[in-house]
Amino acid sequence: MTEPHALIAVEMGIDTHQEPVVFLRADCEVCRAEGFNANTRLQLSLGERAIIATLNVVTEAVLPPGRVGFSHIAWQRLELKGGEAVTLSHAPVLHSMSAVRKKIYGNRLSDTEIGDIITDISLHRYSDMQIASFLTACVERLDTAEVIALTRAMVASGKRLHWPDRLQRMDKHCIGGVPGNRTTPIVVAIASAAGLIMPKTSSRAITSPSGTADTMEVLTRVHLELEEIQATVRQVNACLAWGGAVNLSPADDMLIRIEHVLDIDGTGQMVASVLSKKIAAGSTHALIDIPVGPTAKVRSQPQAEQMARLFDTVGQALALKVRCLITRGDQAVGFGVGPAQEARDVLAVLQNQADAPADLRERALFLASHLLNMAGRGSLAQTEVQARDILLSGQAWQQFHRICDAQGGLKEIPDAAFQRELGAAHSGTLLAMDNRRLARLAKLAGAPSSPAAGLRLHAKLGQALARGQPLLTLYADSRGELDYAAAYYARNQDFFMIGETP
Amino acid sequence: MTEPHALIAVEMGIDTHQEPVVFLRADCEVCRAEGFNANTRLQLSLGERAIIATLNVVTEAVLPPGRVGFSHIAWQRLELKGGEAVTLSHAPVLHSMSAVRKKIYGNRLSDTEIGDIITDISLHRYSDMQIASFLTACVERLDTAEVIALTRAMVASGKRLHWPDRLQRMDKHCIGGVPGNRTTPIVVAIASAAGLIMPKTSSRAITSPSGTADTMEVLTRVHLELEEIQATVRQVNACLAWGGAVNLSPADDMLIRIEHVLDIDGTGQMVASVLSKKIAAGSTHALIDIPVGPTAKVRSQPQAEQMARLFDTVGQALALKVRCLITRGDQAVGFGVGPAQEARDVLAVLQNQADAPADLRERALFLASHLLNMAGRGSLAQTEVQARDILLSGQAWQQFHRICDAQGGLKEIPDAAFQRELGAAHSGTLLAMDNRRLARLAKLAGAPSSPAAGLRLHAKLGQALARGQPLLTLYADSRGELDYAAAYYARNQDFFMIGETP
Repeated sequence: MTEPHALIAVEMGIDTHQEPVVFLRADCEVCRAEGFNANTRLQLSLGERAIIATLNVVTEAVLPPGRVGFSHIAWQRLELKGGEAVTLSHAPVLHSMSAVRKKIYGNRLSDTEIGDIITDISLHRYSDMQIASFLTACVERLDTAEVIALTRAMVASGKRLHWPDRLQRMDKHCIGGVPGNRTTPIVVAIASAAGLIMPKTSSRAITSPSGTADTMEVLTRVHLELEEIQATVRQVNACLAWGGAVNLSPADDMLIRIEHVLDIDGTGQMVASVLSKKIAAGSTHALIDIPVGPTAKVRSQPQAEQMARLFDTVGQALALKVRCLITRGDQAVGFGVGPAQEARDVLAVLQNQADAPADLRERALFLASHLLNMAGRGSLAQTEVQARDILLSGQAWQQFHRICDAQGGLKEIPDAAFQRELGAAHSGTLLAMDNRRLARLAKLAGAPSSPAAGLRLHAKLGQALARGQPLLTLYADSRGELDYAAAYYARNQDFFMIGETP
Repeated sequence: MTEPHALIAVEMGIDTHQEPVVFLRADCEVCRAEGFNANTRLQLSLGERAIIATLNVVTEAVLPPGRVGFSHIAWQRLELKGGEAVTLSHAPVLHSMSAVRKKIYGNRLSDTEIGDIITDISLHRYSDMQIASFLTACVERLDTAEVIALTRAMVASGKRLHWPDRLQRMDKHCIGGVPGNRTTPIVVAIASAAGLIMPKTSSRAITSPSGTADTMEVLTRVHLELEEIQATVRQVNACLAWGGAVNLSPADDMLIRIEHVLDIDGTGQMVASVLSKKIAAGSTHALIDIPVGPTAKVRSQPQAEQMARLFDTVGQALALKVRCLITRGDQAVGFGVGPAQEARDVLAVLQNQADAPADLRERALFLASHLLNMAGRGSLAQTEVQARDILLSGQAWQQFHRICDAQGGLKEIPDAAFQRELGAAHSGTLLAMDNRRLARLAKLAGAPSSPAAGLRLHAKLGQALARGQPLLTLYADSRGELDYAAAYYARNQDFFMIGETP
């Protein structure tokens, strides 16, 4: 037998996202000896540890001889410090890819096959191309048993939060697609003021101008460790934390990234994604908000009903009580879009300000009353009264303040450096708005990476407008972003449909 | 409007295969101003030219401020020389991805939709992930009309060879999966000696130990430009050139690379791939060899017949006369595997050497007689006699020599620096051999990048073997590769099935 081929590890300073990539010189003797080529999947080993990586060939100027370069994630996965002699070989056959091929050919996968795929993905053994292939093969081709297996495998891929068994843990989730629909902080405040336990972990924006974690970060600290989440919930019944810090269903995060790059969104995949996060967070009850509208994520009532049925069945199989609410998704909720602007709306509702957005308040009350009802606090008619009373009496605001204090204190909402009003192109009634482009506009202005950036609407559907009357105000932290967003708006005159009332 | 954001272009010395990648610093102001993140698809513009690329974020040490780094293919596609100020923006929406999504959801695609996808792929506008998603969605889900549209679009993606209309141009193709099945040089020599026109362009190995172009390169020059191909064919009726130099159906090459990485191989995709190359090469007739065997590409007779029907129908729609031959694929053909070893077999057959492999000779004669029959040279019984006569009389060898002379002269076949005999593990009859592992063994020895590397079989199925009797000889250009291949053989004792005759 020959000695294994080893090269000295070098960190390349290149971020290849979740796909480990290694870099070798074109004239590398190991490549030659091992028959590596541009399509080879490599195994890199150091002692007991091993990773699989994609190969990129580089010129001599990039890497000294006898070296192998690592991308960030490859470096991190192999836990390198620098200077180690790493062994290179052909990657072993990934058996779970046979199951992926089985699905590509339209066959059912067993629980074990799905489990093996998710394990390999969570260990970064799949290239982005392989994940893309798996996700594509699954779109609308997973049956209920497969979605259940997928959910279970995703939960098993990461950590779980544990809570005393006797407690009900309430959760809520919106499947998204409607800008400004920031009900979570209000719902959590109302429900936990009523004594419900809500260990709420939320995500940051992936493609939207703000996620609940981004909005909450404007108001308080959200990067809590596992122990802090548990301490906060013990102290004030609830938390409003970023889920990313606690490694819940990490395989799901990897799948979501590729789904967004490809802009595909299979129902089965999405249900597994949402429910795996809830189960990993230790929830016993989950309320799911499914907004339906012509430019929302779900476009029709039958599609929403089918999704709701799948949520119910999968939840049941995994001992999670699920209730789905199909809601209106034909326009932005509240006035603000972007972390700070949404935070202003949230505070306005919690503080019962006169100009608080009524639609955001009513949606939050609707969801909160359903949560109270699910928790056995009375009929819906009764819990509606309870929820409204908690909000209007100021108890929800006090409770929200307590949660923020427990997480590190309430912060001042930042102001944007630049702002500009944009007016209606002509007079008439506001008949429709495009949720997707509205989200894009807020992102061009800098949201969510500039928390103060975003936009504020001055009109709702059905409102009469005079020509030039302010439709929205843009907020940005740089003049460039402000101009860029304004130019995008100017190029998209059908952003808002203004016409005669039908 | 703001000024567009420009950065100075730098070549990074990194080969990212066919996917253009650009590198930006994490602290890059343009990223901030434009809202670029790790998932952004970028457009890079210089004057009239523009490319779409994937973004990799790098640390400050990798790239000076104010610079944007380019991978090889990105650099080449934008035709950069260095130092240019390149404009960065969000990539425009790729409309053809809507068609990909349509296919993902199981819907039929129109000719236009397929055409748009292939155009965008051939212009490197798709990421590898997007191509992977498209290919996955197509596996066993293309109907005949879609395969026809795909074939047509692939032809349109590259150059075409043009020939005088009155001439029949004969072509042949083997779908692969059987090591050593190097009939093409022999068939072309026989058919063109009989006066048929065969402008044969072949590919190099992608995953096999040798392609026809690799084997022919051991014997003569194969990198011919378009004009040289045409001149050679005018002079000697045929050529045996590498197809890669003439840009025939380049979109196909890009799809094939991703298919091999994913190890998926849809029938429709494969038929389109093969026929697009033939049509682009200007062929009027194509003979397709479909070997069937337990470790070949096609594993069953019904699968082969279904494939043959699709070849026929698609060929007909595109005015290409196709004939499919379903052949045995249960063991390697000839004795040699790897460029030089296969070239030895080819010459042995052409020169009617006493120890020439009979199976290779008979397969070549079978294919050549079908080609002559397709070209109207008589009944199959008659053309079988003609083909054998041309081979046995030495005319085929003289014709092969003429073709090589026209392409730059016949070369000496190189010898490998190292060789080692491997013997039978026990006595008995050779009942089966694994085509895939045999191919892998030859590749581990260094084929095809070392043309002299590969292996030579000393036994065929049905042969009685004594324990330790030589089964094969390994050839390599380095001791490391020889050892590595021998170790692989030692670990895989079920490589050859040796047992009692059933």
